[in-house]
Amino acid sequence: MKALVYHGPGHKTLEDRPKPEIQSAGDAIVKIVKTTICGTDLHILKGDVPTCTPGRILGHEGVGIIDSIGAGVTTFKPGDHVLISCISSCGKCEYCRRGLYSHCTTGGWILGNEIDGTQAEYVRIPHADTSLYHIPTDADEEALVMLSDILPTGFECGVLNGKVVPGSTVAIVGAGPIGLAALLTAKFYSPAKLIMIDLDDKRLKIAKIFGASQTINSASGKVANEVKALTDGKGVDTAIEAVGIPATFVLCQDIIAPGGIIANIGVHGSKVDLHLERLWSHNISITTRLVDTVTTPMLLKTVQSNKLNPAQLITHRFSLDQILRAYDTFSRAADTGALKVIIAA
Amino acid sequence: MKALVYHGPGHKTLEDRPKPEIQSAGDAIVKIVKTTICGTDLHILKGDVPTCTPGRILGHEGVGIIDSIGAGVTTFKPGDHVLISCISSCGKCEYCRRGLYSHCTTGGWILGNEIDGTQAEYVRIPHADTSLYHIPTDADEEALVMLSDILPTGFECGVLNGKVVPGSTVAIVGAGPIGLAALLTAKFYSPAKLIMIDLDDKRLKIAKIFGASQTINSASGKVANEVKALTDGKGVDTAIEAVGIPATFVLCQDIIAPGGIIANIGVHGSKVDLHLERLWSHNISITTRLVDTVTTPMLLKTVQSNKLNPAQLITHRFSLDQILRAYDTFSRAADTGALKVIIAA
Repeated sequence: MKALVYHGPGHKTLEDRPKPEIQSAGDAIVKIVKTTICGTDLHILKGDVPTCTPGRILGHEGVGIIDSIGAGVTTFKPGDHVLISCISSCGKCEYCRRGLYSHCTTGGWILGNEIDGTQAEYVRIPHADTSLYHIPTDADEEALVMLSDILPTGFECGVLNGKVVPGSTVAIVGAGPIGLAALLTAKFYSPAKLIMIDLDDKRLKIAKIFGASQTINSASGKVANEVKALTDGKGVDTAIEAVGIPATFVLCQDIIAPGGIIANIGVHGSKVDLHLERLWSHNISITTRLVDTVTTPMLLKTVQSNKLNPAQLITHRFSLDQILRAYDTFSRAADTGALKVIIAA
Repeated sequence: MKALVYHGPGHKTLEDRPKPEIQSAGDAIVKIVKTTICGTDLHILKGDVPTCTPGRILGHEGVGIIDSIGAGVTTFKPGDHVLISCISSCGKCEYCRRGLYSHCTTGGWILGNEIDGTQAEYVRIPHADTSLYHIPTDADEEALVMLSDILPTGFECGVLNGKVVPGSTVAIVGAGPIGLAALLTAKFYSPAKLIMIDLDDKRLKIAKIFGASQTINSASGKVANEVKALTDGKGVDTAIEAVGIPATFVLCQDIIAPGGIIANIGVHGSKVDLHLERLWSHNISITTRLVDTVTTPMLLKTVQSNKLNPAQLITHRFSLDQILRAYDTFSRAADTGALKVIIAA
């Protein structure tokens, strides 16, 4: 089969690889129908993710059709259309039983990282019963690829951890795909203000279309003042960090109101300054989270009831043969305007 | 009247000052019976608290008797025995109505900071109806001085923010008075392990007497390994920071389990390193808080029902005339073994 393979920092090729086989009773082999590229795949290609070793097939998102199942799988059968979660979970370990699927002792984020992933014609999914979801018959399957990772990540790590409530004030730092996913799901809770902050006016324009109440271009260097001006001088109740660099995390500390929450989504590569000399008495919380995908069933219902339109995030489409072009388009998002790219296998 | 007055970094004197007078309808004048010294008073004397200016009478803790009241006070009358909260709250502003009394727009921690405090024969208490508590008739008034600040601080900022629950694992970094206050109130919730960490074996011995399940002397430099060994390699569910320096805050990051909470109590004077490059995917929370004293009524009930013995924290007693000696004893705690010192006015 064709597969996109990581060959160490800066190197990837589309090549022929053997079709995966069932290894454990809980496995399923899924024929990929649609997959996508994640910002995390770009991190891997920069060499930022040491758990992902050369020779690995990338990708942790997608929809497909069950090809075969192991002897222990009871929830799915060949021919079923399925949504693949970026998080594999056994459902049995201490972390899984607490709903912390991201810390499953034999799962977590392993797809396209510690085991071969979804940017291929077929993928082996371990713990299939608790890592796949049935796709409703009337669903737009392509749009549901956004539910593998980006929408539960924006929702769980940003909106739920950030405790967005009706009438509250929210700032999202970073209007890339993940910030926009947080924006779309923050709207569920009717905040009073949903302020999007980014350096790119094109992305801010999209944020406005997606429902931001205000947008601020951070190039001014006066973001904190502008946010304070929008919030009676108090700052926001929820600041969602959706970039993953020290400067944006510090910005969140500058705009958070007393009693507020900074919800980190960003994948950080280095330590950051935490200004406890100001914040120790500020009654704030800071949260971090790798998505658990516990909200995937909830998000599926919001899509079916038209409360959420994941297709809004899709800007480009390619075939698996064109995946190197898809990577190029996605990685030059500032020029190409790419949010999420769909790859048909 | 006699009062302990701050005269800039390193300088304090016991001197004669005019008795305070009612300034607003909500004020009460309280005759101090017993007061104490807080670690924060030492911070002021080091020059760390710029809001406290020279000429200020220090102190934000105490019990006393109502001497006179303003025209608007309805809950207290002259002769009533009262507990003074370290936090003054109007009860009317947006923050007070959310229970965030520490951020009251005309109160918060102002006593012995922005207005004259309790280390004197008399003190003016603004917003008396919502900043004082009646003392039950059968109570040990001296012990209740511990409920002005230290016990609600350890409880709210450490135990409640840290979400200590039955069966959980808790580490408290710092076995000084505030760490011990967190220890005494963490016991309410029956955690499986209550690990106290400090450099001072004398304090660790007291922690053991107060109910620590394990103690670790951090001089070894191997604290993280020792905590992991006590928690099946996972780290603790709750890490309470009760020191206020960068090294102890980083230690909390080294011992926190996935899904855990770092609850900061320490008063920090400088920024700290936050290792988001490790913690972004660790599903943790970090909380900060200036005590709101919302739990003072609850703590009073735990004292009355013998679930909490605040007198355990008192090691030395002085008269107001001896307050300079009391400061000396308290500030040389490593030598004197002082936890909390009582000063009789």
